Amino acid sequence: MRTGSISGKKINYDRHVVNKMINDDTQFHDLAERCKGKLVVAVQGLGFVGSAVCAAVASVVEKSGSPKYFVIGVDLPTPESFWKVEKINAGEMPFPSADASLSEVIHHAVKKQKNLVAVCDPRVYRLASVIIMDVQLDVAAYPYDGSRNITIETTGFTKAAREIGRHMCEDALVIVETTVPIGTTEHIVAPAIREERKLRGITQPALLAHCYERVMPGANYLKSIRAMSRCYSGVDAPSAEAAGAFLQSITEGSEVKHRRMASSTASEMAKLLENSYRAANIAFIHEWTLLAEKSGVNLWDVVDAIRIRKGTHDNMRYPGFGVGGYCLTKDSLLAQWGGENLLQVDTGLDTTLRALQTNYHMPLHTLDLLRELLGENLKGKSVVLCGISYLPDVGDTRNSPSQIFADAALAAGVKLTLHDPNVSLWPERPDVPFVHNLEAAIATADALVFT
Amino acid sequence: MRTGSISGKKINYDRHVVNKMINDDTQFHDLAERCKGKLVVAVQGLGFVGSAVCAAVASVVEKSGSPKYFVIGVDLPTPESFWKVEKINAGEMPFPSADASLSEVIHHAVKKQKNLVAVCDPRVYRLASVIIMDVQLDVAAYPYDGSRNITIETTGFTKAAREIGRHMCEDALVIVETTVPIGTTEHIVAPAIREERKLRGITQPALLAHCYERVMPGANYLKSIRAMSRCYSGVDAPSAEAAGAFLQSITEGSEVKHRRMASSTASEMAKLLENSYRAANIAFIHEWTLLAEKSGVNLWDVVDAIRIRKGTHDNMRYPGFGVGGYCLTKDSLLAQWGGENLLQVDTGLDTTLRALQTNYHMPLHTLDLLRELLGENLKGKSVVLCGISYLPDVGDTRNSPSQIFADAALAAGVKLTLHDPNVSLWPERPDVPFVHNLEAAIATADALVFT
Repeated sequence: MRTGSISGKKINYDRHVVNKMINDDTQFHDLAERCKGKLVVAVQGLGFVGSAVCAAVASVVEKSGSPKYFVIGVDLPTPESFWKVEKINAGEMPFPSADASLSEVIHHAVKKQKNLVAVCDPRVYRLASVIIMDVQLDVAAYPYDGSRNITIETTGFTKAAREIGRHMCEDALVIVETTVPIGTTEHIVAPAIREERKLRGITQPALLAHCYERVMPGANYLKSIRAMSRCYSGVDAPSAEAAGAFLQSITEGSEVKHRRMASSTASEMAKLLENSYRAANIAFIHEWTLLAEKSGVNLWDVVDAIRIRKGTHDNMRYPGFGVGGYCLTKDSLLAQWGGENLLQVDTGLDTTLRALQTNYHMPLHTLDLLRELLGENLKGKSVVLCGISYLPDVGDTRNSPSQIFADAALAAGVKLTLHDPNVSLWPERPDVPFVHNLEAAIATADALVFT
Repeated sequence: MRTGSISGKKINYDRHVVNKMINDDTQFHDLAERCKGKLVVAVQGLGFVGSAVCAAVASVVEKSGSPKYFVIGVDLPTPESFWKVEKINAGEMPFPSADASLSEVIHHAVKKQKNLVAVCDPRVYRLASVIIMDVQLDVAAYPYDGSRNITIETTGFTKAAREIGRHMCEDALVIVETTVPIGTTEHIVAPAIREERKLRGITQPALLAHCYERVMPGANYLKSIRAMSRCYSGVDAPSAEAAGAFLQSITEGSEVKHRRMASSTASEMAKLLENSYRAANIAFIHEWTLLAEKSGVNLWDVVDAIRIRKGTHDNMRYPGFGVGGYCLTKDSLLAQWGGENLLQVDTGLDTTLRALQTNYHMPLHTLDLLRELLGENLKGKSVVLCGISYLPDVGDTRNSPSQIFADAALAAGVKLTLHDPNVSLWPERPDVPFVHNLEAAIATADALVFT
């Protein structure tokens, strides 16, 4: 028995029960019956984004007030994933989120509107006119040393694309929403789908588009899906047109326009450049933070003074503890890897990769400052790390810079405790103890680090 | 005999005439007489900025409509500088400018209001309650190789500060407006003035402030001096207060507020960071430009798609030919040099210096593109370089990237001609011929390069 949920009560994994979820013909035919006459959207991958996209698409209503789409969330029948399916079917957002509307919308869609279900059965792609890929394609390993030693495991992602090709309707639209290495839509997804369709005797090219998300973690997550202008592209004109029409149909507010790019590589690059720019700007300020510290200058003041220059300098970053989260720590690596492996060009992204390296090492500077305050030897010093997630008011701890700091602090012998009002368990470092009474902790701590 | 003017008719340099400009006691006493009962502002250094500052300060009027300040522009009696004095006294802006109001204001101030004169006589500092330093402090040499081999010649600048200290009133305010290496106000200007005052028996510290300009080359140059919010700082509280009051007095619009920084190093750093940020953002995009070219992606489209993200990404730069002008090519070097030599810290500005290097080499990429189009050997190929100044609609050719391109093209044997509606002579490369009839040139050219 294994358990899957990281939020709320745990869900036990039972292979027999889960297997039934995949192969239950009655269940599939019931679902097919329910979908008759409806526009079905399937979302592949029920991670944070995929689950939220289910909610977003399910919340689209016609003028009459009735739901526009019937949404089927699909994930794998594995211990890591099956529980998300169960959660959604119970009317819950599978992940903790600062945006309460996500849970509300899912509950309403599953329990009231009855236009959202989740399954582990890939046959449901047959029912869909739009299939959205939200399957992770992660950097498996990278030493953050500015090198090009990036390991990306594409097997699972390619398999997911094949699964779609094996079942999809001839004229369904596939939208890749995952943030992917440049070249992925054309060089990984398209061939996988093409080959599977060919095995089924379908020679007509599939409608295939790339459209990246611009979700904003925090209290307006759901709104950020439906009200944000987006970039999209198709592998051909009909694909782009179909994707543009679908996007517009799920968009709140007719003034929000989406931007069609000339190729899937262009829209893939847009996403990666968008986040690389942010990461590079953060790294740049880190360099000046260190200079300002040495020069006795308060860089916050300086940045404030500069940010008044609207349109050119108002996005300048403030000095900080480091960079975390799911995008800024890795998207540049996807550009590098895709350029090198899929497009087979020498990317030349030296400064871009160097910025990731700088950002990765930023939390270690805080440890240096601690050494300045408490002495070179930190062994046995009691330090409270306040803030484990990577953004204010968010419980998301993925790739948090606090992790880099904690690892280094623990290695230096620091007696580390944690405090974060939004986090009660640190999945990445479950052994580090929390202190809930901050006042008591302050009384005995040698230092507090606010991240 | 040497000539000084780069605009309009030439002015001959005659040492005897010029010497008389310095030592003419009658002239000095007449001027002192004219200044009686007036608030006098002296501007040291009549380069582009200094001349425009003369215009800006002279244009300030009281509610009654009468001029608030009597302005004395001061420059050296050298062949390089004396002519600017003559030009201003003739009622002309010494430099060509896209902002016609500069000339108009100078003409009005000199000829009608009679509250602006220019001199070569340093004794006039005695008459001023505010002295603004606009003397150049340039990078004399740098190989743009990312190294720290920066040569800055401070002798002239230090001498200028001493000249002020030798003559200034006890309670006059000195404002350093020149863009300077961090630490300059405190470690170069303050001691120079202090020592000179000490020789005169004055032990009271001088009122000394740093306030950088944010002028914007182009049609709104003058307005950019008087309507832009600025940063300032004093070496002590009375200096900062005096500088803040003076700045506000020359500002158009009571809604424009100026920002007081905690130290002169902080405001010096603000200026350098402001321009270094811009330079780094340009270098960053250059890296992605090369990747986009190799990937068959139109990066303009991609940048357009990203710039819709207001406040975070809307200052993203477009691909370009290179970076020129007086600030972005050198201000990072002033931070590096000042940090190392005046504050004596290890600046760590590696990425910042690397960005300058990238930008310096950008025009050479255009030459690579020419080689792709015309073949490896460019010898004898006829190329028209369209655009020599460093900004659109501006005649300023200082540090123009066209210069780097032209040098490399000529070295490769290209038959280079020039076309620029705003430039009729290229002072930095006077030997390269212009074509005025672009249509005829197109007919025979192998390539046109639009910068």
